[in-house]
Amino acid sequence: MNNAYERLKPYLERAMAFQSAKILFEWDNETLAPREAEKNTTRVVGILSGEYFNVVTDPQVKELVRQCKEETDSLTQVENAVVRELAKETEKLECIPKEEYRQFAELTARATGIWARAKKDNDFDSFAPVLKEIVEYTKKFASYRAKEGQRLYDVMLEDYEKGFDVKTLDRFFQTLKDQLVPFLKKLRDSGVEIDNSFLTGDYKEADQEAIGRFFAEYVGFDFDRGVMAVSAHPFTTNLHNKDVRITTSYNDHVDDSLFSVIHESGHALYELGIPDELTQTLVGQGTSMGMHESQSRFFENIIGRNENFWIPVYEKLQDQFPDQLGSVTLKQFVRGINKVEPSLIRTQADELTYSLHVLIRYEIEKMLIEDQLKVEELPKIWADKYEEYLGVRPQCVSEGVLQDIHWSQGSFGYFPSYALGSAFGAQLYHDMKGKMDFEGLLRKGDIKTIGEYLKEHIHKYGKLKTSRQILKDVTGEDFDPQYYIDYLTEKYGKLYGVEAD
Amino acid sequence: MNNAYERLKPYLERAMAFQSAKILFEWDNETLAPREAEKNTTRVVGILSGEYFNVVTDPQVKELVRQCKEETDSLTQVENAVVRELAKETEKLECIPKEEYRQFAELTARATGIWARAKKDNDFDSFAPVLKEIVEYTKKFASYRAKEGQRLYDVMLEDYEKGFDVKTLDRFFQTLKDQLVPFLKKLRDSGVEIDNSFLTGDYKEADQEAIGRFFAEYVGFDFDRGVMAVSAHPFTTNLHNKDVRITTSYNDHVDDSLFSVIHESGHALYELGIPDELTQTLVGQGTSMGMHESQSRFFENIIGRNENFWIPVYEKLQDQFPDQLGSVTLKQFVRGINKVEPSLIRTQADELTYSLHVLIRYEIEKMLIEDQLKVEELPKIWADKYEEYLGVRPQCVSEGVLQDIHWSQGSFGYFPSYALGSAFGAQLYHDMKGKMDFEGLLRKGDIKTIGEYLKEHIHKYGKLKTSRQILKDVTGEDFDPQYYIDYLTEKYGKLYGVEAD
Repeated sequence: MNNAYERLKPYLERAMAFQSAKILFEWDNETLAPREAEKNTTRVVGILSGEYFNVVTDPQVKELVRQCKEETDSLTQVENAVVRELAKETEKLECIPKEEYRQFAELTARATGIWARAKKDNDFDSFAPVLKEIVEYTKKFASYRAKEGQRLYDVMLEDYEKGFDVKTLDRFFQTLKDQLVPFLKKLRDSGVEIDNSFLTGDYKEADQEAIGRFFAEYVGFDFDRGVMAVSAHPFTTNLHNKDVRITTSYNDHVDDSLFSVIHESGHALYELGIPDELTQTLVGQGTSMGMHESQSRFFENIIGRNENFWIPVYEKLQDQFPDQLGSVTLKQFVRGINKVEPSLIRTQADELTYSLHVLIRYEIEKMLIEDQLKVEELPKIWADKYEEYLGVRPQCVSEGVLQDIHWSQGSFGYFPSYALGSAFGAQLYHDMKGKMDFEGLLRKGDIKTIGEYLKEHIHKYGKLKTSRQILKDVTGEDFDPQYYIDYLTEKYGKLYGVEAD
Repeated sequence: MNNAYERLKPYLERAMAFQSAKILFEWDNETLAPREAEKNTTRVVGILSGEYFNVVTDPQVKELVRQCKEETDSLTQVENAVVRELAKETEKLECIPKEEYRQFAELTARATGIWARAKKDNDFDSFAPVLKEIVEYTKKFASYRAKEGQRLYDVMLEDYEKGFDVKTLDRFFQTLKDQLVPFLKKLRDSGVEIDNSFLTGDYKEADQEAIGRFFAEYVGFDFDRGVMAVSAHPFTTNLHNKDVRITTSYNDHVDDSLFSVIHESGHALYELGIPDELTQTLVGQGTSMGMHESQSRFFENIIGRNENFWIPVYEKLQDQFPDQLGSVTLKQFVRGINKVEPSLIRTQADELTYSLHVLIRYEIEKMLIEDQLKVEELPKIWADKYEEYLGVRPQCVSEGVLQDIHWSQGSFGYFPSYALGSAFGAQLYHDMKGKMDFEGLLRKGDIKTIGEYLKEHIHKYGKLKTSRQILKDVTGEDFDPQYYIDYLTEKYGKLYGVEAD
């Protein structure tokens, strides 16, 4: 037993409790809290953030961390990792004046409500002032932490995916663009028309919820350790490994809620797979946003849009919606949910064009943070880029720049993780196919075996390994986006009867 | 501006934030949290309780309070009241060892889940050990605070209703017993049979919820500042005056959910009526449990079971339940919801026998705290007393000693407030009838005017006045339980065609 670490424990506990309380308030705010609660509740969240800040930047904590780092041999692997994460957090926060940190927490607590209303009212102007403030804070905070000559956007990217800076991501997105854009053109020129009209219709909310719960459970979500609710924008949050929560929203496109539930379940399985030893510690969460998205997008697309997945359960879906799907065959359904069609909304995008949605956000964020763009110009550049890359132009901000919650939460640098995660997932898929009868498992309805592989190789490590390390340890190779390109071109080449280059 | 008070403010803010977080966790725990979350979440609540404890018992706080008390002239009325409440809280907590306080918080956080399952499984033995622990903690904490020779139960009673000790309450309950028990006998001997069978049936949960929301709003609950959800036991909680939450539960007795919604709305209106100046301070809540119950039971019974209340809205209820109530007349309905019938469940009790349910709990609590009863003996004594006072005997613990949540939360001394509150309400009713056309307002559907009277004379003061002071200031008289007896005997005498003594 290490004395310095023992003395660190009460600080770690308090930091954990304040974070947990903040998480619960955020969850509550986005799923339940009444409209007018915002201002008063924001005060509470601000104070809790301040308390968290106080603990993490406490000089005594810094001293104990220093001592722990000198005695790594007497600490367990987990303890050393906790100390490492704590040091990172201290370093990140101690350069921010406490009052600014608290103001920012209050600002973002307030901003998600403003964003949600602005989106509902299709009114960018009501969100612009608060977004401007958020951008300024985010840049200021990044500037406090930036090393000499470091780009501010790189500071932000590092928070979500260690080792993926602007230079790396420019190259990554360039690869995707170079190979997927011409491939997409081929698909569109193929003349193949896929019908997915049956996915839109009078799908009752209660029925969508019932089938959503079924599929969450089917892919492994455990309702004894989790909750499913409704929010403007689907998300997953967790208090610990026995309380993981997903949300979805309902409209007349049944695939929206269906695949967002499967997507969020993928996130949730990651957090449910954290061992008891790690939960409620600083290393008791998914290791990075990219690795998180690799899990969610793996479940949503590689599993969820796979014909073999639907073989044992399509009848169940038909039974829930006999009028809408009774006469749609399994083949037709699977083709429908894989239809490639450039569209406006990221969360509803098909698997292939999805990364172009992310590319747009990446380019815009970079410009916004690097002062090449004003907040007021967002709706126009957003629309322009959609027109340029995807050939569709949003007619209103609700379907354009206001569609995502991220910026209202101060999450800049998050979006690239979605594309990275998809690429991680494809690399993992390639590995799994060599190690198990993946398609056979899906056909048998045995998602459990796949879930156990993910738990064993990814989930159980929490933050003990980086995403890059995990990929290497599992697949024996460094990250390689080519698996993603190959997966997409093979799958969609077959569907549309075209060859990749 | 007082310097000591200014320096106290950050402590007050932190105490408020920790309390708010605890309240949200409790709410979440009882309405939504998954089954297995308990243990980990309990840790979080325990740590937050410890932080609250640390703030309130901080020596610096004590010193600042001392200074403030010496400079009352330079403080506003609200500030002086806040200082008074803080001093009371400090005094209450500082004699409790911090570790015990935290353990108790964790224990009660855990216990409500255990109670809920025990109730569901009709299994007293699974709840008994944790209840035993709670009783021991509660007694120990009371003993720390007891003045020389003070009864432990008096210490507990004081927390819920200042100025109502065992002696006073023995007399109060004796009065009720002496006058109501013979009156009840008369009603039963009258031979009058009231039919309320139509209140039980296939009342769909979604319909009950819809009509519940209507009635909550009808009596003044504001959904822009409030939330309604489902829990095992109906309750009201509030984070501040812009976020007040009520729950209900649904079964096949439509009046259960209907009147619990109106009851909880009465509680909620109290908290929604707290002015902005007081909310999120130590005086920004209802002044006592008794005064709180006076509001809830006033709405539930004096308003909600009044024929005039139903004149403008009974049709609405019939429209929601045409099969069940379409052929039931207004008169039949009002007689049905006022049927006097000794029964097992307090929250479903009629207005008249209700206080006997409370009397039983009062007597049992007193014995439990004063070592005249063991936890193991609870099911039997509970059943015996029900048989003795009400002539009905529970056949299972779910309908007996496990029906109420209070003890699992460590709330001993709370129950008497229900009867006191009913009596406060009747005294207020008597006063209001002299000052406005109360019955005419109900007939016109003008609940707002009644709500404004309550806000103006009670709600807006928060904890600035005690319940006794409020009663005196509004009615010009000290508390007098005779109004309650008179109200009940007049109303039910008329209904059953008998005379009071």
